[in-house]
Amino acid sequence: MDQVVGFLGGGQLGRMTIEAANDLNIKCVVLDQGHSPAKQVLAHAEHVDGSFKDPASVKKLAEKCTTITVEIEHVDTYVMEEIEKDPNFRAKIEPHWQTIRTIQNKYNQKLHLHQHGVRTAEFEDLEGKSEEDIKTLGQKWGYPLMLKSKTEAYDGRGNFPVKSDADILEAMQALGGRPLYAERWANFKAEVAVMVVKAKNGEFAYPPVETVHEDSILKLVFAPARNVSKGVLQQAQKLATKAIGTFKGKGVYGVEMFLLEDDSLLVNEIAPRPHNSGHYTIEGCYMSQFQAHLHAILDLPIAQEDLELREPSIMLNILGGETTDSHEKVKMKALHITRKAHIHMYGKGPARKGRKMGHITVTAKTMAQAEALVQPIVDIADEVRGKPQKWIQLQPSSQSPTPLVAVIMGSDSDLPKLEAGIRILDKFSIPYEARITSAHRTPVWMAEYAESARLRGIKVIISAAGGAAHLPGMAASHTCLPVIGVPIKASNFDGLDSMFSIVQMPRGVPVATVGVNNSTNAALLAIRILGVGDPEAWDKTVAFAEQNKNDVLAKDVRLLEEGALAYLQKMS
Amino acid sequence: MDQVVGFLGGGQLGRMTIEAANDLNIKCVVLDQGHSPAKQVLAHAEHVDGSFKDPASVKKLAEKCTTITVEIEHVDTYVMEEIEKDPNFRAKIEPHWQTIRTIQNKYNQKLHLHQHGVRTAEFEDLEGKSEEDIKTLGQKWGYPLMLKSKTEAYDGRGNFPVKSDADILEAMQALGGRPLYAERWANFKAEVAVMVVKAKNGEFAYPPVETVHEDSILKLVFAPARNVSKGVLQQAQKLATKAIGTFKGKGVYGVEMFLLEDDSLLVNEIAPRPHNSGHYTIEGCYMSQFQAHLHAILDLPIAQEDLELREPSIMLNILGGETTDSHEKVKMKALHITRKAHIHMYGKGPARKGRKMGHITVTAKTMAQAEALVQPIVDIADEVRGKPQKWIQLQPSSQSPTPLVAVIMGSDSDLPKLEAGIRILDKFSIPYEARITSAHRTPVWMAEYAESARLRGIKVIISAAGGAAHLPGMAASHTCLPVIGVPIKASNFDGLDSMFSIVQMPRGVPVATVGVNNSTNAALLAIRILGVGDPEAWDKTVAFAEQNKNDVLAKDVRLLEEGALAYLQKMS
Repeated sequence: MDQVVGFLGGGQLGRMTIEAANDLNIKCVVLDQGHSPAKQVLAHAEHVDGSFKDPASVKKLAEKCTTITVEIEHVDTYVMEEIEKDPNFRAKIEPHWQTIRTIQNKYNQKLHLHQHGVRTAEFEDLEGKSEEDIKTLGQKWGYPLMLKSKTEAYDGRGNFPVKSDADILEAMQALGGRPLYAERWANFKAEVAVMVVKAKNGEFAYPPVETVHEDSILKLVFAPARNVSKGVLQQAQKLATKAIGTFKGKGVYGVEMFLLEDDSLLVNEIAPRPHNSGHYTIEGCYMSQFQAHLHAILDLPIAQEDLELREPSIMLNILGGETTDSHEKVKMKALHITRKAHIHMYGKGPARKGRKMGHITVTAKTMAQAEALVQPIVDIADEVRGKPQKWIQLQPSSQSPTPLVAVIMGSDSDLPKLEAGIRILDKFSIPYEARITSAHRTPVWMAEYAESARLRGIKVIISAAGGAAHLPGMAASHTCLPVIGVPIKASNFDGLDSMFSIVQMPRGVPVATVGVNNSTNAALLAIRILGVGDPEAWDKTVAFAEQNKNDVLAKDVRLLEEGALAYLQKMS
Repeated sequence: MDQVVGFLGGGQLGRMTIEAANDLNIKCVVLDQGHSPAKQVLAHAEHVDGSFKDPASVKKLAEKCTTITVEIEHVDTYVMEEIEKDPNFRAKIEPHWQTIRTIQNKYNQKLHLHQHGVRTAEFEDLEGKSEEDIKTLGQKWGYPLMLKSKTEAYDGRGNFPVKSDADILEAMQALGGRPLYAERWANFKAEVAVMVVKAKNGEFAYPPVETVHEDSILKLVFAPARNVSKGVLQQAQKLATKAIGTFKGKGVYGVEMFLLEDDSLLVNEIAPRPHNSGHYTIEGCYMSQFQAHLHAILDLPIAQEDLELREPSIMLNILGGETTDSHEKVKMKALHITRKAHIHMYGKGPARKGRKMGHITVTAKTMAQAEALVQPIVDIADEVRGKPQKWIQLQPSSQSPTPLVAVIMGSDSDLPKLEAGIRILDKFSIPYEARITSAHRTPVWMAEYAESARLRGIKVIISAAGGAAHLPGMAASHTCLPVIGVPIKASNFDGLDSMFSIVQMPRGVPVATVGVNNSTNAALLAIRILGVGDPEAWDKTVAFAEQNKNDVLAKDVRLLEEGALAYLQKMS
């Protein structure tokens, strides 16, 4: 029997995994209702119509395949256990049914993580607990706290935030009848997610992304996460990999995390399957999470480098709005705005409010470009859904865009000499940061600053210095970014001392030196350098040169018309 | 009735177009045999089983859809004409049946292009012609010449190269029974193809690609075409757009061209549908040729900018080999080499020799990286097909890459001072050109050189100068590229004269000045500047700094171990 992958569930996650399988001639069979999204993109008579919670249907699927996987965790793990233990079935199950069973129950999931030393928010079982017990918890943890259903909870359903003692009864009634637990409120500054691939040769992590939720439903994903230091990104990958290391079974897993104010991380939730926060990988990475899932469960080759980002990416969910065709409206309007965004509709028929009907991924050379591309589409999605137009950005990078140029000086006494250059950066809308860091008085901070500059997005450094003028050369020694040196005319020698200190660097560490006090040229040179890779910056330098030319030509005409002496008179 | 697209033909081109349609919730119906590749990725009962050449089946399809399109040109255009003229059918046909009918017949296609002023190779009808007539042609054009079947010709089938008088009878017999024409041999240095989108708002062209054939079957596509000047690329887009402008009907068209030794272009062949040379667009561009085809035939929005290349791309066809599973072997081996290559298998079942079973697309930041990634996969594809291992490269781009750095000097007397910098560019494999151009003795040529530098691909200019030292500043006045000035120590003033001339540029025109005679730092600065946009160049500067650091540390260890005086002794 050839390799056949059976899917419990035929929603959009199954659909996109099957699209990846189709590209590889990998045979798949789907168990779900009639014309579900996954079945639409794979025509054959072997699919099973039925529920992925129905044991008989699951066994029927198992007979048809060599590997069973899930695209939803709300499956019947007991029939999966039975299939695994029954030698009549040859189908392997990935990930393991125990993993799915543990994850299905959010309380057990948290307990499992806690027992394996993976940090989560504090939580407590509410089995047999009364309103009074919860009040006691409220006193201990402070409000708000979360009341959560242990099972069948997703997209915010089954969660109830309790803001004071007075809310407790309402919360218990709203979640009534379900097994509950309580969770301490995590005061996070951002939500971060990492897709982890668990394969026979180890665990591998996709880049951490920033997730933005609206009404408890994922709305936007930024890959890589914005405004987060490299150290935190590495921590997020490490924590996610550690968490998935505690579970049995191969496949991709989604790990959702909270990033707290102190830059520490908590694991919030695990999904034992491809995840909405990984959809961007189709266009954003060389290998999508869906292909990675297939590789993991089928023991096909996979390595960390496969999960690299091709380009900064933003994903926007297309959610059902007030009308059944709202998603189609978003699609058509998005197509009218740009065709650089890739649209994925899920073939779900009429929309229900808040239902995931499709998604859009934008990729671009820079995150700022991706943000500019996606912004009008987000506006339209909000408008169609009847949401007030607002651009959700935790720390909007377009309002305070990542600086491309660092203007540094050893002392604020150099600032007046840098003013002309800074005004040019401003005029050309080149994002910059101006900082004081001294080679002599803050040597360690200066070194750290220069070393981390590139990771923070800086592309060129302009450094002013006078006298011994070590700053440009020292900055160039601590980074491989191009450094432009502006010799400042200090008290002696007309600035010649500064110029020699800056320009006469030893072989190996270049500083691009401009004229004494000439921060204008430093700024223009920085823009020329940016223009090497950025057509927009190029256009700006060309426009500047053009204006300069016209200014001179205009003056020449005036000189011709007025005569030299009259001109001279007006000058004084 | 909702919009429904009917496809005549269900091969891989239809399959990939339907994958694009699925992403957009666009309904499709396919006419072809049973389980054809296109039907596999779209499950519903409305497909039509039958031949796209059978009038009754075509009419059956037409009843089910609002737009009919083709994924193969060997269709029955007479039934299409009938459908267009019969008001009972509401289905529009795109592109127009007349276009398909003209293109189906290669002789008529050439005649059409010729009549519309589109340059092709010389050709002549052979209807009613004898062996003697062909000999006369051979004398007129010279050998080899091509004998071609007018109809049902593709992938080299229906073509016979005639090398001498003696071949003529054999050729006529081999192509026997079919209507023939003769074509003069085009002595091309490369084959170039352009996908053109003909939409309601005009014609738009994808980037010209370089195509490489083996045994008359397309094997490799390089996007963009390598080693071709920008001017030729523009000519290719212009010629392709002109050619498609002469045909009726919307959709994407493939235009295959010959690039002759004198850089002029001939149109070789037109395909009125998505084309193998455009498969790279799925990963290589923001909008694939398949989505573009749908947008064109359905009047969805489209613009030139949508067709931009995301990254340099190479496509390799997976062709059937000696065994029926050869394509699966290529796939598995390719997966073991890298997962950065995207594999598309077509679901065609057992392979036939030379049949297109799938393709692989590699994208990378640079063409050189893409070439390095694809090379081992090409080797494996060759090996599996029993072909001798050889790397087909018409003009391997790694041997004469476009220079990124221009090293200019006013006189060859400056060259010795530039040697150290040039050696660094060499060592780091940064493509450069060294030129002599003087601000004073060749002012016009110097200006032209600087002005055209960017269009030729130059990103940074290094300019040496001594004495009055005008060259760096004048070059910077004629281009907005970053210019690095190297003051050369001339006969007087220890180079201070040169330095002042270079560094003290007026506000508005910056020159990045390095130390006197320090071309080493000029080269390193150039690489740092390239590193702003090119991670590879960045890695090189980091590696250089690392090696410098290690050199110093090693010397320090030696100094410590040997003692200062012993060390000093060895130095002399």
